[in-house]
Amino acid sequence: MIAALALPVTLTTPRQELVLRRARPEDLDALMALLSDDPISAARGDRAEQDDLPAYGQALVEVTEDPSNDLLLVEDAAGAVIATMQLTRIPGMARRGSTRLLVEAVRVSSSLRSGGVGSAMMRWVTDVAAPATGSSIVQLTSDEARVDAHRFYERLGFVGSHRGFKYAVDAAPRRAR
Amino acid sequence: MIAALALPVTLTTPRQELVLRRARPEDLDALMALLSDDPISAARGDRAEQDDLPAYGQALVEVTEDPSNDLLLVEDAAGAVIATMQLTRIPGMARRGSTRLLVEAVRVSSSLRSGGVGSAMMRWVTDVAAPATGSSIVQLTSDEARVDAHRFYERLGFVGSHRGFKYAVDAAPRRAR
Repeated sequence: MIAALALPVTLTTPRQELVLRRARPEDLDALMALLSDDPISAARGDRAEQDDLPAYGQALVEVTEDPSNDLLLVEDAAGAVIATMQLTRIPGMARRGSTRLLVEAVRVSSSLRSGGVGSAMMRWVTDVAAPATGSSIVQLTSDEARVDAHRFYERLGFVGSHRGFKYAVDAAPRRAR
Repeated sequence: MIAALALPVTLTTPRQELVLRRARPEDLDALMALLSDDPISAARGDRAEQDDLPAYGQALVEVTEDPSNDLLLVEDAAGAVIATMQLTRIPGMARRGSTRLLVEAVRVSSSLRSGGVGSAMMRWVTDVAAPATGSSIVQLTSDEARVDAHRFYERLGFVGSHRGFKYAVDAAPRRAR
């Protein structure tokens, strides 16, 4: 967890009040379901298969114990987990010693998209989490296929100025330190 | 520093043998010069101005003390600093609990570009640093204006599958925690 972030907080959307809080070990099934509730993620291997439980469980522990990372989720009034995102605080030399806040793995339950949940999450990131962590840049990458997501980020003031490159390290041992 | 990385190492290029090592406080001037030796970076404020020394110096300490980050530089046989890059190890849930290695702020001295320095650095990242840190993905973003850099990354096997978005947090306090 990133200690500088005061959580949980209430997020207000046009339809309902939501709670943004840190993920806990018992949220594992709900997080796996959210990650697989998306055709692009499913194509990359996030299919909520029971064989993958140990890998996801180990990742959940590692992310939540890391002082530079926070794994967050959004609960509706009934306590259902409807969205998630990961934040990483990255100090750096470029841009006159700017600290960056990286947002990864943003997922909103497919039944609730366009309901203001994602906007409320990202507004909290730019307006609350970034200043709280001393970050002057918030950055993220989004698959080129996610055209709707690109328009969403542009409406929020993000500028798609960069190309995001990925390299798959097939031979890497899974989860080894 | 990322403890799992065994440094320094020798990098071999067609022209010369180089040393890749961790940055130290006394490398501050050389790092500021490299960051400003690039028109795109200079336009973002990296101009190696003396007024910016404290901000860069504080960033250098913070990056090198962070257990998830490493600031590296390349020295030629005469001991001159000719290149730099930052690595960040990021555990995560997506892609079945994959750890990622993020590369930021890659800079090679303008007089030495196309001499194989960048290739040798990136090959070390994908073939040595990624497995050593348990990372199955290496990722980076590159300004859309850096067309030559995009071809360079594609030749190395990177896939430009994503759009990189940035949001400038003007009101954020500089360098506060």
